[in-house]
Amino acid sequence: MLAFMLVRAATAADWAAIWPILEEVGAEGETLTWDPQTTEARAWAGWMREPPGRTVVAVGDDGQIIGSANTYPNHSGPGAHVANAGFVVHPARRHEGAGRALCRHVLDQARADGYRAMQFNAVVETNTAAIRLWQSFGFQILATVPEGFRHPVHGYVGLHIMYMIL
Amino acid sequence: MLAFMLVRAATAADWAAIWPILEEVGAEGETLTWDPQTTEARAWAGWMREPPGRTVVAVGDDGQIIGSANTYPNHSGPGAHVANAGFVVHPARRHEGAGRALCRHVLDQARADGYRAMQFNAVVETNTAAIRLWQSFGFQILATVPEGFRHPVHGYVGLHIMYMIL
Repeated sequence: MLAFMLVRAATAADWAAIWPILEEVGAEGETLTWDPQTTEARAWAGWMREPPGRTVVAVGDDGQIIGSANTYPNHSGPGAHVANAGFVVHPARRHEGAGRALCRHVLDQARADGYRAMQFNAVVETNTAAIRLWQSFGFQILATVPEGFRHPVHGYVGLHIMYMIL
Repeated sequence: MLAFMLVRAATAADWAAIWPILEEVGAEGETLTWDPQTTEARAWAGWMREPPGRTVVAVGDDGQIIGSANTYPNHSGPGAHVANAGFVVHPARRHEGAGRALCRHVLDQARADGYRAMQFNAVVETNTAAIRLWQSFGFQILATVPEGFRHPVHGYVGLHIMYMIL
């Protein structure tokens, strides 16, 4: 059963909850193209996006921050009408619907912001739960970069580039 | 006839020659996902890459900087074994072989640096000269992001994602 899930803009104060999630998921090394040596300052700069980028958090009905997402233009200038987005959910709070709530919010916000499409550049092909989730929203696999990701268990696996018209 | 072309690591002093090239090609708006409003400070940070990234310049036999390229991991951590690269050539110095010399150098250096593949994320599909050049080195079109680029003459055109095993 999915609990109530609030998605709202992230504040500077939320970083104390976001950073351990990024660290933990990054250390797992299975789903994010994330360097575990990333300093907190660099992580902040990369995750807490300046406008026109946005960063949001998913808050459970217990008041805890369960996950976070950000959105920003995938390219600059003449490519800025296609959005990119990143998602992270606390490993201990998976299967509560945070990913779905974050994706729904991010898609709605991207449409409101005037983006024409959304593109994910690096969806690990063994991350089947995420792929199914993105596909349920309408994302398609545009291409797979062969052996684009070094998985700690499966070795080199593909990285899907996923795409959806908004 | 192609003149002699030196490709070497870019120094801070080279920026005075690189920046006008980026500004001019960016202002044309036909080949780069570049925001013409980009400040010089941001342009510097984006183009003059810190290690493990690299930035090089192509110098003509007249001693002028004709073009520049940079290379860096396309993704972080478990995705860092695939390189990305960017190229820019002075509009008045096209067809002198700078693009070819830069690409050859960047590929050799990327192999020496231990990358397993190279990926371009945003090759404008109307930039046929560049596409032919990359293909002559062995790059393939992995996918095309539909209408990913807003061209000043042709409107929305595709952005090729190109890929090559090193």
